[in-house]
Amino acid sequence: MVSRPTLASLAEQLGVSRQTVSNAINAPERVRPVTLERVRELISASGYRPNSAARQLRTRRSRNLGFRLFPSEDGINGAVMDRFLHALTERLQEYDYRVTIFAAPDVDAEIETYGELLETSDLDGFILTDTRQDDPRTGWLMDRGVPFVTLGRPWSSDDGACPYPWVDIDGSAGTAEATNYLLEKGHRRIGFLGWPEGHETGRDRHAGWQTALSPYLGARELDSLSVGVADGIREGAAGALTLLANGATAVVCASDSLALGASEQFRAAFPDRPPAVIGFDDTPVAAAVGMSSISQPVEDAAGKIVEIMRTMLDDSPNPTKPPRHLLLPPRLVLRDGGGLLASPSAA
Amino acid sequence: MVSRPTLASLAEQLGVSRQTVSNAINAPERVRPVTLERVRELISASGYRPNSAARQLRTRRSRNLGFRLFPSEDGINGAVMDRFLHALTERLQEYDYRVTIFAAPDVDAEIETYGELLETSDLDGFILTDTRQDDPRTGWLMDRGVPFVTLGRPWSSDDGACPYPWVDIDGSAGTAEATNYLLEKGHRRIGFLGWPEGHETGRDRHAGWQTALSPYLGARELDSLSVGVADGIREGAAGALTLLANGATAVVCASDSLALGASEQFRAAFPDRPPAVIGFDDTPVAAAVGMSSISQPVEDAAGKIVEIMRTMLDDSPNPTKPPRHLLLPPRLVLRDGGGLLASPSAA
Repeated sequence: MVSRPTLASLAEQLGVSRQTVSNAINAPERVRPVTLERVRELISASGYRPNSAARQLRTRRSRNLGFRLFPSEDGINGAVMDRFLHALTERLQEYDYRVTIFAAPDVDAEIETYGELLETSDLDGFILTDTRQDDPRTGWLMDRGVPFVTLGRPWSSDDGACPYPWVDIDGSAGTAEATNYLLEKGHRRIGFLGWPEGHETGRDRHAGWQTALSPYLGARELDSLSVGVADGIREGAAGALTLLANGATAVVCASDSLALGASEQFRAAFPDRPPAVIGFDDTPVAAAVGMSSISQPVEDAAGKIVEIMRTMLDDSPNPTKPPRHLLLPPRLVLRDGGGLLASPSAA
Repeated sequence: MVSRPTLASLAEQLGVSRQTVSNAINAPERVRPVTLERVRELISASGYRPNSAARQLRTRRSRNLGFRLFPSEDGINGAVMDRFLHALTERLQEYDYRVTIFAAPDVDAEIETYGELLETSDLDGFILTDTRQDDPRTGWLMDRGVPFVTLGRPWSSDDGACPYPWVDIDGSAGTAEATNYLLEKGHRRIGFLGWPEGHETGRDRHAGWQTALSPYLGARELDSLSVGVADGIREGAAGALTLLANGATAVVCASDSLALGASEQFRAAFPDRPPAVIGFDDTPVAAAVGMSSISQPVEDAAGKIVEIMRTMLDDSPNPTKPPRHLLLPPRLVLRDGGGLLASPSAA
């Protein structure tokens, strides 16, 4: 009896790595065309069929992608991720894909669930969010040849060389635009109200403010105008008091929760004009209270992620591969602080 | 060669309907114990195994439930459904169940997707929301013996006799409590700001206000104090103007969007006191602006739905069946209108 061809035997016959054969099946765009053709010919000639123990190598698609649903912390900032999930589900639906969502208390549990889902639910791949530096999830999935796209860059020293595809929103460009807008309005002592150190997204949003403001203020002044607090309305109000004490006349914030707290303090400190406070995420709360905010194009991000995923799953007729690393610019939504019925005004 | 037993041949041998055999496998609590035992004995003796063409009759569980994700219309009122989805996912995760979400433009497309998902993704059942009178989805699922629970009552003449399980939130009790609170505060001309006719949820919320207020006002007065508009902040503001013109001093609203618009008008009409406006859903926006609102216990509803679903899937060791029809009371969350940093105060 001739033994069934396996991934390993195919790799040996071709003189390529197991990963290359896996990629030829799961992520053909990662394999050089010449190699791809050789692998495909041998697969076809050998009668190789992925078995259930090597389910990640299946060619049959379940048209179902996995997604970890993070708990929404204060109901304000979580809104942007819920918006992303709605957009992702709707874009995927256009191509008859569904999303399997799950909860996990931490990254280890998330990875464990990947394993269970691949085993039991036959998923085609995963969409990851909340990427961190040295994220253990991406390596785990790559080792197993499981297709995935992240909303969030790898935060490595060279994100462009990243071996897996990602789409992210350029938070730094957003806070720089907000800071430049406040500079144009005549402000110089513009504060930054962010989170404590150690959070990549927070560092990125801080960087845009710093870059835009550093032609105007020295390092010591910049230091005194940057405050990091836990996310929340009350925390934002407390942080804003520090900034006001240090002479800030305006503030760019890392979230709408922080900005809501800051707005109250800036309104009290400068009662004769709308608070010069800009939030981040353009949540429904910001719109309702007439607060300016930086809007993340999560609908566009979802569309790009779906394009990339379809190419990885060999499901796209598009001969032009979409770019695999994309940083999308956010948009500054200006409002006059005039309250619930105020219309957004153009920049 | 002996032909394989099928659902139909089992039903014929037992002299019961095909549906009864299906129920014995998928929803054993719907079958009389004596019949259940007969069906199970024959299934066991016959070597019957559900095949893929009769996938809905499988005994192997995918531990995956389907859920249609509705688009969030204005980002304010959708928050409560997103809260429900988070809670549902987390409660199900405790028992190793996942949720497969999908988008659908309408109910027909939703039903079509049920069929596809049962065929391709091997789902154990569905959680339905946004139930309407004569909802075609529930009949479709019952006809096929597919387990499901709805968040939302059937809105029939006798919801307690409904053949399928549902959990709902007693909107009428919520608006009655809000109206009674305003009555205690000395208001009599309390308006109701709801949606146009034809929406069961809207009618329910209207009914609570009407019941609480009818001992104090005549039918004509009640009529003049009830306005139905499309959901939205601006629409709420317009509706509130009508109510103010008709002498309203306070208003109970069917949504927080409507209440946000009404708040602005009531603040302008009664500048010396916080607006006597109560919203519905206790969204993050209501909390941020210090607006009172009726809070739906969607986390409790998710927990109850999971209990019922586990019993239906024969996955619960609990010998006491949970009640299959549950109307949960909402809670009035009072706030002083004092703005972003105001704490919620007890009733």
